[in-house]
Amino acid sequence: MTMIRVAVAGPRGRMGALAVETMITGREFLLVGVLDRKMAESSNMLAGSVPIYTDMLTLVDEAKPDVLVELTSHESVYPNTRDAIMNGIRPVVGTSGLTVDQIGKLSELSREHGIGCILAPNFSIGAVLLMKFAAMAVKYMPDAEIIELHHDGKKEYPSGTASLTARMMAEAAGSQEGGDAPDGRGTDVAGIPVHSVRLPGLVSHQEVLFGGEGQLLSLRHDSFSRQSYMSGMVLAVKEVMNRDCLIDGLDKIIG
Amino acid sequence: MTMIRVAVAGPRGRMGALAVETMITGREFLLVGVLDRKMAESSNMLAGSVPIYTDMLTLVDEAKPDVLVELTSHESVYPNTRDAIMNGIRPVVGTSGLTVDQIGKLSELSREHGIGCILAPNFSIGAVLLMKFAAMAVKYMPDAEIIELHHDGKKEYPSGTASLTARMMAEAAGSQEGGDAPDGRGTDVAGIPVHSVRLPGLVSHQEVLFGGEGQLLSLRHDSFSRQSYMSGMVLAVKEVMNRDCLIDGLDKIIG
Amino acid sequence: MTMIRVAVAGPRGRMGALAVETMITGREFLLVGVLDRKMAESSNMLAGSVPIYTDMLTLVDEAKPDVLVELTSHESVYPNTRDAIMNGIRPVVGTSGLTVDQIGKLSELSREHGIGCILAPNFSIGAVLLMKFAAMAVKYMPDAEIIELHHDGKKEYPSGTASLTARMMAEAAGSQEGGDAPDGRGTDVAGIPVHSVRLPGLVSHQEVLFGGEGQLLSLRHDSFSRQSYMSGMVLAVKEVMNRDCLIDGLDKIIG
Amino acid sequence: MTMIRVAVAGPRGRMGALAVETMITGREFLLVGVLDRKMAESSNMLAGSVPIYTDMLTLVDEAKPDVLVELTSHESVYPNTRDAIMNGIRPVVGTSGLTVDQIGKLSELSREHGIGCILAPNFSIGAVLLMKFAAMAVKYMPDAEIIELHHDGKKEYPSGTASLTARMMAEAAGSQEGGDAPDGRGTDVAGIPVHSVRLPGLVSHQEVLFGGEGQLLSLRHDSFSRQSYMSGMVLAVKEVMNRDCLIDGLDKIIG
Repeated sequence: MTMIRVAVAGPRGRMGALAVETMITGREFLLVGVLDRKMAESSNMLAGSVPIYTDMLTLVDEAKPDVLVELTSHESVYPNTRDAIMNGIRPVVGTSGLTVDQIGKLSELSREHGIGCILAPNFSIGAVLLMKFAAMAVKYMPDAEIIELHHDGKKEYPSGTASLTARMMAEAAGSQEGGDAPDGRGTDVAGIPVHSVRLPGLVSHQEVLFGGEGQLLSLRHDSFSRQSYMSGMVLAVKEVMNRDCLIDGLDKIIG
Repeated sequence: MTMIRVAVAGPRGRMGALAVETMITGREFLLVGVLDRKMAESSNMLAGSVPIYTDMLTLVDEAKPDVLVELTSHESVYPNTRDAIMNGIRPVVGTSGLTVDQIGKLSELSREHGIGCILAPNFSIGAVLLMKFAAMAVKYMPDAEIIELHHDGKKEYPSGTASLTARMMAEAAGSQEGGDAPDGRGTDVAGIPVHSVRLPGLVSHQEVLFGGEGQLLSLRHDSFSRQSYMSGMVLAVKEVMNRDCLIDGLDKIIG
Repeated sequence: MTMIRVAVAGPRGRMGALAVETMITGREFLLVGVLDRKMAESSNMLAGSVPIYTDMLTLVDEAKPDVLVELTSHESVYPNTRDAIMNGIRPVVGTSGLTVDQIGKLSELSREHGIGCILAPNFSIGAVLLMKFAAMAVKYMPDAEIIELHHDGKKEYPSGTASLTARMMAEAAGSQEGGDAPDGRGTDVAGIPVHSVRLPGLVSHQEVLFGGEGQLLSLRHDSFSRQSYMSGMVLAVKEVMNRDCLIDGLDKIIG
Repeated sequence: MTMIRVAVAGPRGRMGALAVETMITGREFLLVGVLDRKMAESSNMLAGSVPIYTDMLTLVDEAKPDVLVELTSHESVYPNTRDAIMNGIRPVVGTSGLTVDQIGKLSELSREHGIGCILAPNFSIGAVLLMKFAAMAVKYMPDAEIIELHHDGKKEYPSGTASLTARMMAEAAGSQEGGDAPDGRGTDVAGIPVHSVRLPGLVSHQEVLFGGEGQLLSLRHDSFSRQSYMSGMVLAVKEVMNRDCLIDGLDKIIG
């Protein structure tokens, strides 16, 4: 097995640090460098002799990565991703904040250069599978409700994942988004009731229930730690090697 | 084992018919008669040669029941229960509609005659255990939410069982009932958020979640058929034989 | 909307009777006849003036069904299905017992005549979705276990559905079936531990758990009544109209 | 509110360190010292100016604790607990390894001095509530099975908690322990089938299912982190102040 050469942009953030660790410990990956202007000021090596670069061109020349894992900020994500594609490096983008317009341009660039690029916000494999399955199931069992459960520190509701799930379900079912005011049973997202439980001790949990004549189908995902987010990134890093265009969402590569 | 001699008042209703069947098939019980004015007009025997009576006194004299299972209507429940106690028959009351005042009088009468009487609205054993446990748990894990799930034919929410559970929990926790307006996450009953799921295919389900530092305790009851209600009645019929006063609620005899 | 003209073979069995009821009440269907030699001896009309036929040819000529729902016995299923296809009627087969050889012949015949045919053993939509999703998920989250829960009257274990699910998962994962003896934690089917719970009150329930770094994905199906099996048949009857060959399994038409 | 003065014996272990942190941050507690011979060699103050003592007598004299949280080893637990009681300090013992004989002696000593002592192995409140409720429920719903789910690093099965739960249930039900060989559906503990699921990502989870006519009661406890064990200790420290004898198990003080 040839190892995939990976560089991580944004190695000091919470997700970046996890990504560095994941790439160092994963037997299928070789972490060949990180991109970080500030870190490089004080040191030019990560623990484990991984070189720290301050600009993409030097990184490309010296580290020769196959894949760039992009975990910086909404200011840097576009130029970093663009430069990666133009230099033949396949980006896996975990940073949010790309505009529709920027995604359009990256998609063109990606196709033009025949260089795969995956936009994969921080989701675990299990969460992506759940959303995918929910969108499939709703076509056959249209009566559905969502229960999302989080620690009581999470003040907003419903959760972003629950809203995204509901919208993917509504789109799959061909139903009109928007619609009516909620009737007081939870929040209504795209016509699907979403119930939000907030309790100390909980981490991040989501359940989608589908009712039908004499039956109930329940899809549930529990995320017990941030570690779970790495599973989606690992899949994306492997998969981007087989792609030659931009793919927006992990759910598009599952199936 | 001596069998308990049981009479059923209100044998034609949905619960009454189930009660008759349960008492006929249960090896610990002997169904000695039913009390039903209308039924008696056309026939004086139930299938299986169970005599049908139209008034309590004849039933007492001839059938000599130990226990009267009361499943009539809110008009008849008080006089039937009173007459049973005064004639030395122990009532198990499944009919709702007794006023606080009537319960007070029955309680006095029960104590005076040393004749047990159990008020047991139609609950299954499992539902009563869940309520009991929820009221115990909330003292140690005060952060709790309720999810109740019913078929989509049930338009009202939250369910009566969920409301009762929340009130029993609030009382056990010593918290002030009433309180604030809900914040949109379900309904607020006695300070406890209650989420109501309505889906075709569901029967009657309730879950109480307790969150604490690093942990979650979940109590769930699923009722798959009306048959489940009989379990509470069977327990009450056996238990009323050992009692000499009125007991309001199955939860009082569990533990 | 044009209604689909449906005939039911085997209308007296448990599933047949449910199918007749479903086709009579479904607004998308018109029940044009049933095929039943024995029933026809005493009457030539079902309630609701549905004619009873004793042979396929007369049924074809007079009732002109689009679809034949086959719910007879393992002796009659092959000739009935074959004759239906040869006469331009699309079979939906709920009867089990077709041999691999017979399925091969029906498949050829179906393709030759361009007449769709769906083999759909008695599964609810929810159960089929669960199996489909389990086979998809196992490719991304290979560590999985199955818990199946049934009423205590079901003596055999694991359940047929659980075994089928495990085999579909093993096939999707490309793993070798067979393998090791179980280690005492449940039964091992195709390398996947299957735990069998048997309790009074339960109906038919199955859960597939997938564990991964920091996360758990759970797929669960509850069947509360036999009514749930009709959902799969209804889907098949609609879908067979759009097909021109034999399809073995409802999971093949979902997605 | 008067704060409870607490000393921790064994502050360097995993549970000890958590206990120190919990007692420092808890507003109801004042950590007045720790007992640790080895730690004291290099330093005589914990961070936050908590003095470190090497012998019980000095600790008693100088720190004047109300409660001693005992988290040392099976060699030290008996003398430490004994000395605490004799000096008027109420022990909460989280260390295992006391013999039946030693527990007997401590119980006598405790009663004699009128000094409460609670033996509380490392259980979270939720786990103790689950065991308590399971033992209560089994009297009314005797058909039960246990599912315990742990990370795949846990090789032994069933888990100690599941075995203890099963034995408490068997005792409550008055059933004979031991009994039959398992029939292959999980392991049999005291007549109750226990199913063990082992998957990566899982932490520590237990579910007890009770089936009855038309119904299912499910009690579930999820422990997401070691932090959950502190909840039982906190309860014990508060409760031991109100006791004047030895109590063996947190379940004895709940209700």
